[in-house]
Amino acid sequence: MRAGVLQRGLDGAAVTGALALCLGCLHVIALKSQLLTGLGGSSDSAEAPVSYETFYFDQKIDHFGFLEDGTFKQRYLVAHKHWQQPGGPVLFYTGNEGDITWFCNNTGFMWETAEELGAMLVFAEHRYYGESLPFGQDSYSDSKHLNYLTSEQALADFAVLIQNLKSTLPGAQHSPVIAVGGSYGGMLAAWFRMKYPNIVIGALAASAPIWQFTGIVPCGDFYKIVTQDYARSGYNCDANIRKSWKAINNVSSTVSGLQWLSQEFSLCIPLKNKSDAVGFKNWLQETWVNLAMVDYPYEANFLQPLPRWPITVVCKHLAYDPGVSDYQLLHGVSQAAKVYYNFTGTSSCLNTSQTATGSLGLLGWFYQACTEMVMPMCTDGVQDMFEPEEWNFKAFADECSAMFGVRPRADWAGAVYGGKDIASHSNIIFSNGGLDPWSSGGVTSNITDSLVSIVIPDGAHHLDLRYRNDYDPPSVRAARALEVMYFRKWIKQAKRPPQT
Amino acid sequence: MRAGVLQRGLDGAAVTGALALCLGCLHVIALKSQLLTGLGGSSDSAEAPVSYETFYFDQKIDHFGFLEDGTFKQRYLVAHKHWQQPGGPVLFYTGNEGDITWFCNNTGFMWETAEELGAMLVFAEHRYYGESLPFGQDSYSDSKHLNYLTSEQALADFAVLIQNLKSTLPGAQHSPVIAVGGSYGGMLAAWFRMKYPNIVIGALAASAPIWQFTGIVPCGDFYKIVTQDYARSGYNCDANIRKSWKAINNVSSTVSGLQWLSQEFSLCIPLKNKSDAVGFKNWLQETWVNLAMVDYPYEANFLQPLPRWPITVVCKHLAYDPGVSDYQLLHGVSQAAKVYYNFTGTSSCLNTSQTATGSLGLLGWFYQACTEMVMPMCTDGVQDMFEPEEWNFKAFADECSAMFGVRPRADWAGAVYGGKDIASHSNIIFSNGGLDPWSSGGVTSNITDSLVSIVIPDGAHHLDLRYRNDYDPPSVRAARALEVMYFRKWIKQAKRPPQT
Repeated sequence: MRAGVLQRGLDGAAVTGALALCLGCLHVIALKSQLLTGLGGSSDSAEAPVSYETFYFDQKIDHFGFLEDGTFKQRYLVAHKHWQQPGGPVLFYTGNEGDITWFCNNTGFMWETAEELGAMLVFAEHRYYGESLPFGQDSYSDSKHLNYLTSEQALADFAVLIQNLKSTLPGAQHSPVIAVGGSYGGMLAAWFRMKYPNIVIGALAASAPIWQFTGIVPCGDFYKIVTQDYARSGYNCDANIRKSWKAINNVSSTVSGLQWLSQEFSLCIPLKNKSDAVGFKNWLQETWVNLAMVDYPYEANFLQPLPRWPITVVCKHLAYDPGVSDYQLLHGVSQAAKVYYNFTGTSSCLNTSQTATGSLGLLGWFYQACTEMVMPMCTDGVQDMFEPEEWNFKAFADECSAMFGVRPRADWAGAVYGGKDIASHSNIIFSNGGLDPWSSGGVTSNITDSLVSIVIPDGAHHLDLRYRNDYDPPSVRAARALEVMYFRKWIKQAKRPPQT
Repeated sequence: MRAGVLQRGLDGAAVTGALALCLGCLHVIALKSQLLTGLGGSSDSAEAPVSYETFYFDQKIDHFGFLEDGTFKQRYLVAHKHWQQPGGPVLFYTGNEGDITWFCNNTGFMWETAEELGAMLVFAEHRYYGESLPFGQDSYSDSKHLNYLTSEQALADFAVLIQNLKSTLPGAQHSPVIAVGGSYGGMLAAWFRMKYPNIVIGALAASAPIWQFTGIVPCGDFYKIVTQDYARSGYNCDANIRKSWKAINNVSSTVSGLQWLSQEFSLCIPLKNKSDAVGFKNWLQETWVNLAMVDYPYEANFLQPLPRWPITVVCKHLAYDPGVSDYQLLHGVSQAAKVYYNFTGTSSCLNTSQTATGSLGLLGWFYQACTEMVMPMCTDGVQDMFEPEEWNFKAFADECSAMFGVRPRADWAGAVYGGKDIASHSNIIFSNGGLDPWSSGGVTSNITDSLVSIVIPDGAHHLDLRYRNDYDPPSVRAARALEVMYFRKWIKQAKRPPQT
């Protein structure tokens, strides 16, 4: 089962079968989910539209070699309405795997903080995403062109861009710069401070699973947290989802069962044979994971338009007692899925090749997962509500090799970014939501007095980076206040001569 | 003048003329000299031979891209006679631009410290030098094969090697590792601690000019220090060298003058025409620079066999009063040069295409100077004793482009390695000799209480890394004692849980 997920990302349509034996695909579901939620913040229309200018910087295609000396146009957005120049601080968003205007429009926390700090905002697009394509439309054509898509190159882009801004923008020369990012962007923010402390005085790494790498955290933790979210949100909710996989297997074993499933779930493309059930289950699993990431306390339109506390709403459809029939249970599952896919009532059918809003750099992220960003994931069906699946690096690597002609390096991220040995760094805030499955790989306790953790028990994926909302729990309000307090502290620190 | 220096490095024979307008070559003279002295320590035969085992590690050719997935054999040497396992410390030499057995045999300080600390010694060869050639004998064939010769790749090699040793060598898993290096190797040691504090608990960066980059220190400081060394070592010594360039110009303007010069200096290849005087002056300038770097307080055979305090001996031949004739002065210069080239009396003639011992990775270093390691150098003839020459990046870059097909990036080293903004790092000792011209780009005062500077007023290039000697000035003895004290402190620190 769970085959074809990586493949599906490539063309936006499920291609099951070809990779039917792939056991290592599962984590890509989660990675894809991370990708989707990595796009940060709320796009609630209630918020005032943001205003920024768009610029393009000639960035080296390869910072780490000199054979390829070409450049590409890196897009970045600047908002300086509240900037107190000269010397006012800069909040610099370390763009992740998507169009930078998304981040810019949806990271409300930065916009709300700019005035408070007299800060300029800069949102820098990550190479290979949005408009920042090193080789234009050829950027994804083959492994040769993809070769410069790495986190190290992205960090170097940010460093060179900031150095350039400081030397060319009047009033910016002595501006302290703080990196801000969420999800993969949060990882980049933290790593940016670690690797380039000369460039940024500190970093806010929101929901950044910097430890979700080989040998650092247990591979099952991610799905355990997903499961807990359902367990706490309704009667028998996790148990019934756990039970649903077998029910799908049973029902999908007959042609009439497949027809029933297709109708019950209002599938755009009906299930035709038993093997289609594999992709169907993948899609459901992704759906439950996505819901866990966006279990926000208010109505929001992020991955999909959703009610407040969407998992609680989902679980109302899954509150069966033990002994429920397969068909009854799956009726509940279909109702639950429709909370996610048809909250607005405007979907005529459900498309199992998509679990969230499109227009994202899925392919780029798959490449990154197939090279550096190797994040082991596994399930056991006991501590989590999913079908058991071990982490199989070999199978995953083979799939990557077949797809991109590259092989992932399981240990590299841990070596280059320090793994758990990061105590010598400073001025990084790691914020994590207690509801967010990605907190499994996050820093959830203080490491030193300047590598601090903020846990938001009622928060899903980087809730703190979103716009303020009347339904915000006190924990996220406190988190934001603390984050701004650290920003002020770092800015003050930067103006002092160093300790001697 | 000073043309063809870079070119000369390529084939070991002077090729003047083709690059006669190159104004940017001069620093390469210095770089070449750095290269030569970068090979660390004394090879005095009085010392006991060192004993080590040789290993080879399968290292990725490209750590920062996934298209090139090949590996090469990185050589490293291990001495564990004094290692207190399990958990005893490791002193790790971050190999620079040359054969690692040189460093291993000549960094006496590490050998003398091993027993004291119960430490294992590891000497890791830098890629593209010695036997560690990523593409075998094709490694230098073109810019495509040279593309992986960067300091970042070398640091990644060291990180991956250490992680591998820790996971495979019984008793090493919890061993704290300290990086040690001199000259470019010292820069690597410092940068290694900055970029991979998860891998090394601290670094001794001896005579490491980490600030000898664009816009960080004045380009003339290097040659000022060279000049000071001569000014302090004998009557009118610097003044007479300053005067000698014009004398050479005068004398070399006639055929008989060229003949006289060739005989006076016992040149293996006589000067034939006026333009040969350019290369001749380059060679002399390199000679004075080399002497400044190896102005050690005892007889040593490093770049050449030399007497103790060789500059003082040299200056005895240059103690003329003002008014000395060109021929008299140049007679003195020839005697001075022969102190350097013929101290042992065994040279039948002087070879102007060579200024020091051969078998070094000159070509590799030239490539590095033409890419990342752009170190501006200039002279004004007033504050230094050389002919005035501005730093001309454009001309230098053009020469690099012609030679290697690559263009240097003047600002990259400062951006990636932090320039002067390194205060947030920790546990690095920067030692510098007061006589060493490379101290111009070194850290010569404390930055914080864990980024400390040790200045050895009577020391030339990384004297502290050499074996103990009865003639050692008290300052270098004190320096070594302090360095070991810091090593102990870091080792103790590493065993404590991090500050919270």
